[in-house]
Amino acid sequence: MAHVLSAIKRLELASKNMPGAISLAQGVPSLESHWAVREGAVRAIQEGKADAYSSPRGLEELRFAMSESLRKQGFIFDPAKEVIVTAGSIEGLSCVLLSILNAGDEVIVFTPTYYENYRSIVEMAKGEIVASPLEKTHVWQIDFADLEGRISSRTKAFIICNPNNPTGSVIPAQDMSRLAFLAKQHGLYLICDEVYRNLYYGSEVPFSLPHNGQDDYMIRIVSFSKDFALSGWRIGFVCASERIITSILPVHDSLVNCAPVVSQYAAIGGLRHEQEIINSARQEYGERKKIMEDRLLRMADFLNFVSPQGAYYIFPRLYRVQDSERFAFDLLSQAGLAVVPGSSFGEGGEGHIRLCFGRPRSDIEKGMDRLEIFLHGG
Amino acid sequence: MAHVLSAIKRLELASKNMPGAISLAQGVPSLESHWAVREGAVRAIQEGKADAYSSPRGLEELRFAMSESLRKQGFIFDPAKEVIVTAGSIEGLSCVLLSILNAGDEVIVFTPTYYENYRSIVEMAKGEIVASPLEKTHVWQIDFADLEGRISSRTKAFIICNPNNPTGSVIPAQDMSRLAFLAKQHGLYLICDEVYRNLYYGSEVPFSLPHNGQDDYMIRIVSFSKDFALSGWRIGFVCASERIITSILPVHDSLVNCAPVVSQYAAIGGLRHEQEIINSARQEYGERKKIMEDRLLRMADFLNFVSPQGAYYIFPRLYRVQDSERFAFDLLSQAGLAVVPGSSFGEGGEGHIRLCFGRPRSDIEKGMDRLEIFLHGG
Repeated sequence: MAHVLSAIKRLELASKNMPGAISLAQGVPSLESHWAVREGAVRAIQEGKADAYSSPRGLEELRFAMSESLRKQGFIFDPAKEVIVTAGSIEGLSCVLLSILNAGDEVIVFTPTYYENYRSIVEMAKGEIVASPLEKTHVWQIDFADLEGRISSRTKAFIICNPNNPTGSVIPAQDMSRLAFLAKQHGLYLICDEVYRNLYYGSEVPFSLPHNGQDDYMIRIVSFSKDFALSGWRIGFVCASERIITSILPVHDSLVNCAPVVSQYAAIGGLRHEQEIINSARQEYGERKKIMEDRLLRMADFLNFVSPQGAYYIFPRLYRVQDSERFAFDLLSQAGLAVVPGSSFGEGGEGHIRLCFGRPRSDIEKGMDRLEIFLHGG
Repeated sequence: MAHVLSAIKRLELASKNMPGAISLAQGVPSLESHWAVREGAVRAIQEGKADAYSSPRGLEELRFAMSESLRKQGFIFDPAKEVIVTAGSIEGLSCVLLSILNAGDEVIVFTPTYYENYRSIVEMAKGEIVASPLEKTHVWQIDFADLEGRISSRTKAFIICNPNNPTGSVIPAQDMSRLAFLAKQHGLYLICDEVYRNLYYGSEVPFSLPHNGQDDYMIRIVSFSKDFALSGWRIGFVCASERIITSILPVHDSLVNCAPVVSQYAAIGGLRHEQEIINSARQEYGERKKIMEDRLLRMADFLNFVSPQGAYYIFPRLYRVQDSERFAFDLLSQAGLAVVPGSSFGEGGEGHIRLCFGRPRSDIEKGMDRLEIFLHGG
């Protein structure tokens, strides 16, 4: 790895060390956790329930509550055998890749995507990442001709990020089915990183493939970091067939033993108010999205963008930028605004920047001021 | 791996599913967390400080507090560059091994030790574990002739668990120096898993090699799970040279992003009362150790043991037991007592069982009753 930390974190850290800087870089939700989350955690602490390990799979009560939430979305998983609570979705994905990959196995991702992090995890598991660039012209759709050319005997899995970070694009139902077909045809795992699933801006929840514990090739990664604004609590889930969960469990046990117990109780509290929390987050982020988009539309001489269908990022193309990392560091040092260079999202990302509208409204407003002035050369 | 979970967890789970069973199996401290730990966490939650990610290295305040604690023990680490907060010591060890091992590299451990877990992590990192059995006859000392014969061109590291789980033995100063010499001579890492360091029963803290950020071959793993009774909170630390920490950081970032933030605040609270917490734990466990030892001495027809110098386990040899796993499952099913079979601690452990005196006094008393009756055949 060329750098110790991803560009996202390098920009975020640089902005923290610069007085007066504003960051629209790292995807940290600025909303506060719901009172029921806090109450769930505080009560567990006071009752002494947070001190000892839970079972490696996680608290039974939480697995049941999560399975019930998934059931309402049409996904049927047995909480006793087909769900693990993880220390955030990233630990979940690490467990999955560490358990399924042998040295030299390949994993295909669709760029621009959460590339630097996926690559780090794949390489940590001694695998190799392969990028299949999305078609820019059609709102970042999968290029199946390209994809099929990249599948080899060493390919072990696809990872889809849906809604996608950083493009905010959503995979259409027919493309999802085609992906599933290809995965089954070639005996690959289809890993669905759906951590932004509840953050969407159309009238309907983005399409997900039907998935339950009988599907022995799909793996579902769920997180509370974004929609529940619980990034610091490190709570996620892996849902899959019993066979897959059984192979992941010892790796999860080796990595962290169990997810933090206090956070598991916080998540139980949050799940009791799930719909309220998600609706409120979606409403708020929808308004922030509009603020950012209105401002970006006024910079049409310098950039264009596809309105995101989900997640909380806009990924504008900057007409005159060839080196987005240099642009990002110039923007920070000269205008005091941190954004993420598009190059860090893999092939097809260069020339873009990622702006997070999960950040506070005042930061979005001020950040857009700074971007606009900087683009105008001043 | 033959089993999904380690023998420790299989026994623990089996005992939980058996009404009336008592467990002296998993090393879960039964003490409660200190009020300052809870207050630190609750305040952070109420002030909204627990919601967002910390930096991957962990909260600056916690790294400073930890460095100060280490300084008092004679270990000098720069909190800005030579300390990472991890999601428990096990995540710390995973980061270390995932970052230093290439496929096929070997790691030497000294058995009986925390073998099943070390092996899982080494194998997850695509390495191979090599066991050098301790000499049973001399209170579990390192057999250097054996050790030197096992060092090969593929050896990358030693892991020492000191005080050792499950034997409670402590490595004497001269053996530590010899280990350090061998590590330096062969260009190996010396990984010091000292999670039981504060739990010792002599008058003096067990010897540790001098270690600071200038030593570029040693890696120190610290945990709050045992002495602070915070196993469920998942808080540990890795301390090493800046070069080593820099190589570990991206792996830690990929695995968990950061340690749970609420737990980091809990640890800050606890460190303010560190000596009081540790003294109280040591006092209490010292008394429980005596209770267990007094009872075991009455079973001298069936077993013998070396009194532990540290940690909170006794590892008796059972004269008539050849298959300790079978014995452990028989003991659970017939007498309702869960213990860990010695075979799970690697070569030299067969014929023993591990008993944890970190468990509540009443469980120790009842557990000893059940063991005694079972050994007497009835």
